[in-house]
Amino acid sequence: MTGASDLQALRDRMRAFAAARQWDGYHDPKSVLLALVGEVGELAELFQWLPADQARELARREPLRTRVGEEISDVLLYLVLLADVVGIDLATAAHAKLSEADRRYPPGIDPVRS
Amino acid sequence: MTGASDLQALRDRMRAFAAARQWDGYHDPKSVLLALVGEVGELAELFQWLPADQARELARREPLRTRVGEEISDVLLYLVLLADVVGIDLATAAHAKLSEADRRYPPGIDPVRS
Amino acid sequence: MTGASDLQALRDRMRAFAAARQWDGYHDPKSVLLALVGEVGELAELFQWLPADQARELARREPLRTRVGEEISDVLLYLVLLADVVGIDLATAAHAKLSEADRRYPPGIDPVRS
Amino acid sequence: MTGASDLQALRDRMRAFAAARQWDGYHDPKSVLLALVGEVGELAELFQWLPADQARELARREPLRTRVGEEISDVLLYLVLLADVVGIDLATAAHAKLSEADRRYPPGIDPVRS
Repeated sequence: MTGASDLQALRDRMRAFAAARQWDGYHDPKSVLLALVGEVGELAELFQWLPADQARELARREPLRTRVGEEISDVLLYLVLLADVVGIDLATAAHAKLSEADRRYPPGIDPVRS
Repeated sequence: MTGASDLQALRDRMRAFAAARQWDGYHDPKSVLLALVGEVGELAELFQWLPADQARELARREPLRTRVGEEISDVLLYLVLLADVVGIDLATAAHAKLSEADRRYPPGIDPVRS
Repeated sequence: MTGASDLQALRDRMRAFAAARQWDGYHDPKSVLLALVGEVGELAELFQWLPADQARELARREPLRTRVGEEISDVLLYLVLLADVVGIDLATAAHAKLSEADRRYPPGIDPVRS
Repeated sequence: MTGASDLQALRDRMRAFAAARQWDGYHDPKSVLLALVGEVGELAELFQWLPADQARELARREPLRTRVGEEISDVLLYLVLLADVVGIDLATAAHAKLSEADRRYPPGIDPVRS
């Protein structure tokens, strides 16, 4: 991928995709969020019965790899759409959240109890 | 945000964040996916009781706007982490999925039945 | 349905179902939870694009009604299984939670802010 | 728990709880479903970083056991509410789904591929 911003490029394609189909009217936040939940569910189905200690390697191999890439993408696209619907710049927000996490969780803390 | 790729920049920060805390060992796919589900749940809690036809405007105003940006970011960061754990380039995968959607849903189709 | 406890009857059928197929080995909590997330996703897909103010009536009519009943059931069955895996009596726990909610949310409180 | 039906008893308590607070107006299906997603998220947070092979034993011990029981209950209560809102008898629907599963997955099938 090239260009100044992947996330803005995806947002712009999502906008064009919805506009070409006049689907914008469906894109209230609660609907988009439920669509995102649907895609998270499809992602979960790919992993649910895999042995936890083999899941990483299995997901890196075909045919699972392609399926996982598709479902992760679907979640991302609805997330990009939701951010756009409510007027949030996703990259800026995510970097801010990471900076906060850097401050909040100093190295040496166990994630299970944090 | 500047630079060649927002998503790669977020991935690199997530890698550094995890490495500095030695949290990589926790990042098997099923665990990261459950963490993502946790963040989707927090996002859902922000919207659950809002009237559907006012949710967009309410989410664009403070104090909700900042909260929504934080939770959308948390979902994105776990999605970036999951893609990294299984070796998927998220921008490439998402653009491929959008190209497929362009072919699969020609303009004029109703999303409710597609 | 008859008998002293619906939830125990469902639990007993789930146990017999899993035992007959030797699927018990798959039923660690994180796997069952991801399976539940998958079913919640399927439930969300049934509602995602429905107009919020018509969703109730639409879900009460066929063909949606049967589909909703199936997906709600799938979520319930994985919830019953998860409770059984971790040794929790679901009816007792749910009544305790409702009693706590009765104390915690006195009549007159708005759910949006509670 | 005693009585003819646990699930009906929970439904009746949920009805009384909502009526006493005049919360019924909030209980359109998409809102209840998002509330359920929120509770599934809280349940996921309890399990996310636990080692998969120790999760069952850890969840059977305090203090996790009580927390898991609470969150499983919250999911169940919103599921009972959702079924009630759309007029579905949950026990009947779940038994029908189990009977279908009995036919659909004959013993000897691996769940990973079914």
